[in-house]
Formats: sequence, C-alpha cells, structure tokens
Amino acid sequence: MHPFAKKSADSVSALGEEKLISAIRRWLGSASPRAPFGMGDDCAVLPASRLRQLITVDPVIYPRHFNDTVPPRDVGAKLLKRNLSDLAAMGGRPTAAVLALTLDARTSLAWLEQFYRGLAACARHYRVPIVGGDIAQADGSVAASLTLLGAAAGPRVVTRTGARVGDGIYVTGELGASLPTRHHVTFKPRLAEGAWLARHSAVRAMMDLSDGLAKDLRALTPRRAAPSLEAAALPLRRGADVRGALTDGEDYELVFALAARTDREKFAHAWHRAFPHVRLSCIGKFVTASALPTSAVNLANYRGYEHLRTEIKSTRRPRRARSTRPSPPV
Amino acid sequence: MHPFAKKSADSVSALGEEKLISAIRRWLGSASPRAPFGMGDDCAVLPASRLRQLITVDPVIYPRHFNDTVPPRDVGAKLLKRNLSDLAAMGGRPTAAVLALTLDARTSLAWLEQFYRGLAACARHYRVPIVGGDIAQADGSVAASLTLLGAAAGPRVVTRTGARVGDGIYVTGELGASLPTRHHVTFKPRLAEGAWLARHSAVRAMMDLSDGLAKDLRALTPRRAAPSLEAAALPLRRGADVRGALTDGEDYELVFALAARTDREKFAHAWHRAFPHVRLSCIGKFVTASALPTSAVNLANYRGYEHLRTEIKSTRRPRRARSTRPSPPV
Repeated sequence: MHPFAKKSADSVSALGEEKLISAIRRWLGSASPRAPFGMGDDCAVLPASRLRQLITVDPVIYPRHFNDTVPPRDVGAKLLKRNLSDLAAMGGRPTAAVLALTLDARTSLAWLEQFYRGLAACARHYRVPIVGGDIAQADGSVAASLTLLGAAAGPRVVTRTGARVGDGIYVTGELGASLPTRHHVTFKPRLAEGAWLARHSAVRAMMDLSDGLAKDLRALTPRRAAPSLEAAALPLRRGADVRGALTDGEDYELVFALAARTDREKFAHAWHRAFPHVRLSCIGKFVTASALPTSAVNLANYRGYEHLRTEIKSTRRPRRARSTRPSPPV
Repeated sequence: MHPFAKKSADSVSALGEEKLISAIRRWLGSASPRAPFGMGDDCAVLPASRLRQLITVDPVIYPRHFNDTVPPRDVGAKLLKRNLSDLAAMGGRPTAAVLALTLDARTSLAWLEQFYRGLAACARHYRVPIVGGDIAQADGSVAASLTLLGAAAGPRVVTRTGARVGDGIYVTGELGASLPTRHHVTFKPRLAEGAWLARHSAVRAMMDLSDGLAKDLRALTPRRAAPSLEAAALPLRRGADVRGALTDGEDYELVFALAARTDREKFAHAWHRAFPHVRLSCIGKFVTASALPTSAVNLANYRGYEHLRTEIKSTRRPRRARSTRPSPPV
C-alpha cells in the first residue's frame, strides 16, 4: 500500500490537526491512556519507578525501512517491535512509549489508520501504553520514531560489555533471509528470553542483532579478542546461506556471551525447558585475536548494514539481492 | 547556514556510521554520559525515580522549524528548549533526553557539528544528559526529534484541565513577533517559573504557548466557558500587535488559570519577588460562554498555527508576513 493518497480528500491534510488527533485517539483505542497519563497535555505523567529504567529510540522511515509491499499494520507493529528487541537485549520489560511522526500532507488517511491500528494491536499485545506523541509536517516524508521506556525485568541489566576470551557465543532463533521470509515484520521480540538470560549471571554480555552478525558482533567482542565462529554452527533461516546469516540484518535475535566455565549442557537443558520452541545455538567462542584458528569464519570478508555510507546506499533500498551481492572490502 | 554540503567530502556520507557516531560523542562531550548510562548500548540505563515522571516529544524539521538563516547551534538548542518548555508547563524538571535524527547523506558535517554543539551547551546549561539516540538516513531530510523525560519538581503536577469559570487568565513574559525578534530561538524555557507555579494550589491549570494564544487557550478553557480577554492587557513583544500576540506562535510562555478567590495582589507580589525580571500579566478571565462581554477579544477572528492544514501551509514557511496577513475564518 502506497502511503500517499491520490486524492487530497483522502489525505491527512483534508482532516487538519484537530480531527486527525481525534482519529488517532480512536485508532489507538485502549493502547493510549487518557491525559494526563496519555496524549493531550504538554507531557504525559508516568508513575514513579522503583527499578532502574531503560530507554531506547528507533525509527521506521519510508522507503528505507518499509516500502509499498509492507502492509501499514506491519509497519506500525515493526516500529514498536524493533524497540522492544532493544529492551529485550538488556533484560528489560516495557513501561511506556511515545511516538513522533513526520508526515507529508498527502499521506493517505487509510494508510495512517492501518499503521496506527497495527501499532495499537502490538502495544496491547506487549502491554505498552502509547502515552504521547507529536505529528509534524515535512514534505515527502513518512517517518515515525518511537521512544520506548522500560524497566529492568529483574535485579540485573545486561550490557554489551563484559564478554571475556573463552566465553561461548550463542544466538537465539535463526539468522538471515529476513526480507524474503518476511521475518523483518513477523519477528517476535525476545522479551521473555532476554529477561530469562539476564537472570543467569553466566550470561556476561548481550545485544540484539539488527545490522547483521558480522557487524553487530564487533560491539560484543572484548578488546584484543576476536570471535571464532563455526560456519556450520550458524542457524540458517530457510533460504539463507552463511553470507546472509552474517550480513542480511534485521534478525532481531539475541546474541550473548556465556562464561567459559558454564555447564553448557545444563544451560541448554534449562533453556529448552523454558523456551521449547526457540532454537539456541552455540556458534563459536571469543579467542585471543592472535590465536584465531584458520577454520574460523573470516569476518573481514563480510559486513553488515552500515548506515550513511553512500556507496552501499543503492543496495539497501530493494535489498533483495543483498545475500548474493559481492561483499565490498571492509 | 545551509544544512547540505556542496562537496560530498564535507557530508556525513564521507564519514560513515561508525566515525560519525564517534564524532557525535566528541561534539556532545560531557552532555552525554558513557554507556550503559548513555549512548553505546541497546538501551540507556536510567536511575529509578521516587517521583512521578513526565515525558514529552517534539521535533525540529528543515525547513519547517528552521531555515538557512538560523545558526545550527540555535537549532540544536531550540530542539531541547521546546521540550523543556513542555516540561515547565506541568511543573517538571528534566532528567534525561534521547534524540532521533534523520539525515540526508548530503548533510553537511559542519552544520551537524554546530547543531550538536548547540544541543550539548544547552543540555549542560539545563543539566539534561543526552542518554541515547539514533541516526537514520532519509533522502531530503534533516530532522531531529527529541524525547525528554522529567520528574515532577514538587508534590504536584499541573495539567491543562481544572480551570473554572471566574478564574483569572495569566501569561508569563510577552507575546507575538517571535520570528522577527528571534525569540523563537533565544527564549528561555520557564522551568523555574513552572515549578514555582505548580507549588501554588491556586494555579488550577497550565500549559505552554507554542501555536499562539488564540489556538492554545482552547485547551485550557473549561466546558461551556469562554476566555474573556482584554486586548489592552496582552503583553506585546516589541514589534507585535494584538493579532501577532494571539496568532504568531512560538512564544514558549506559560499561560495559566488562577483561582478566582486568590488575593491577586499578594500573588503578583510573590511572583515579582521570585522572578523580578519576568513579566506576569492578567489578560482576562474565564466566563460562561453565554456571558462573554462584547468588549472582549473576539477569538473567532483569530487562529493560531494549525498543523497539517494545506491551505495555510504556504504562509507558514517564511512566516514573516504572518502578523499582517488577513485572518482566515475558523
């Protein structure tokens, strides 16, 4: 569905601000509390928090993060789920979200209604009140940025820092081919899994995978160390090859470092009892950079999605050919 | 300063994501704490909050909220101050901010550096750590959306609801001509004033003025009531007339309802002791809609800035002639 209306009577400009805001309230329904605890005042009022809090922000932008083939309901849900995935990566649970929208005056009301209804359904499912928002006009733009507030689900918050040489590298679910399989819109943020992992002190560092393992893993890698990955251990999504698993991006799975001393069998057993339907794979371990075995995946041959690089800009948009395109040198 | 670079070597695309993020950290300096309490992890970690919290979001978008004549330092500061003004309107103080940026790959590095340095200086001044952010690419776009988190500065949060017939209508500072006087970038958000007002139970309802008094005041007006304003009592900024004071917008002043039974002289005296340099004006009172005196300003003849209305779109951009243009019927 194209986000711009053909006739101006079907666009947001036909309603004007006040009626549009009333319509948005209706579309969000019970996902949006009443002012002052939701939209309608200068700020939204949130309860005090006994726990440490977490905050993150992520956008969806046309045509970068979605195009005319993605149903607007899925765009709205994806916006929230991308942020929930960030929260999951630290072992958090959501408490509230605010939304900033920039719309061209031609934006189709039908498109926008479906976007909000998708967001609202997702917000109800994950119990995230949409407490505030802003709509601004910008020519040519259909973009939404969501800020998600959360709290630690347990006593511990897991960061990207803390992995050590010898730690096992684990990923949840499967990797690659997120675009052709529609995983990039159908994925489930790993909230329960992230909270479970945060309760295990052997999980030393964790993050979510959005730009592809080859790129994202750098942030988890301790200094003077390197990830030694076994290609055969990578959990490939149907249709994905090793390159896709490393570089396609939009996996929204968790990758974490498990302390070397851990009883891996016991850990895997506990995982499968907690999440019988979610695959967990040990894909390698962190080694001293100078001791990288020749059999390990050479990550220098792969790179994930790098934002704001002109030369890869044109390959990002349709992205269908990404897993087969030749890899540029890093 | 134009936000797009002439040569691609001077644009954000020349740096690429990683180096750009390093540069941003440098530009923000001490305004941005280290991960996990700032940028660099999936979420930023925030402390628990004993107090009720407040959250708001507001953007600046080129060329809607700024143009080439506004120095990028002022754009960065304005983005934060717009949000601080929303917080002030409820009697809050800021605790943390996150920033979502969408940039065209041609965005000038020099422009962006000044934007961030202006934001950082303002953040340090108001003690608001910039704890997180996201940068996404969007063709033709230079837009930033800031989510501000705060806490009640005292035991009470003031909302837009609560004014009654008979209550006095007060405004801080002066109104109108915010564009020619550069008030729209030089203004100081009324944080101390908002917190002070929130401590006075006679202040029944409050909001900040962004789209012009004629429009904004509707949100403060009790049902079946009308604001009875005296034109002569409106505090005009130099160069502003009554129309400008009612419709120019971007005043970022506070408007509030003061309970009818209040000793106004005592209240004004206390205000001037607390804020000797900030004007406070009683501009009228709320009356029963059917009892509106003929001498009162007829607000039906004025309207503030309405977003997403195609017919006024063209008058918004340059906005120099706004105070003299004929008013369209509401």
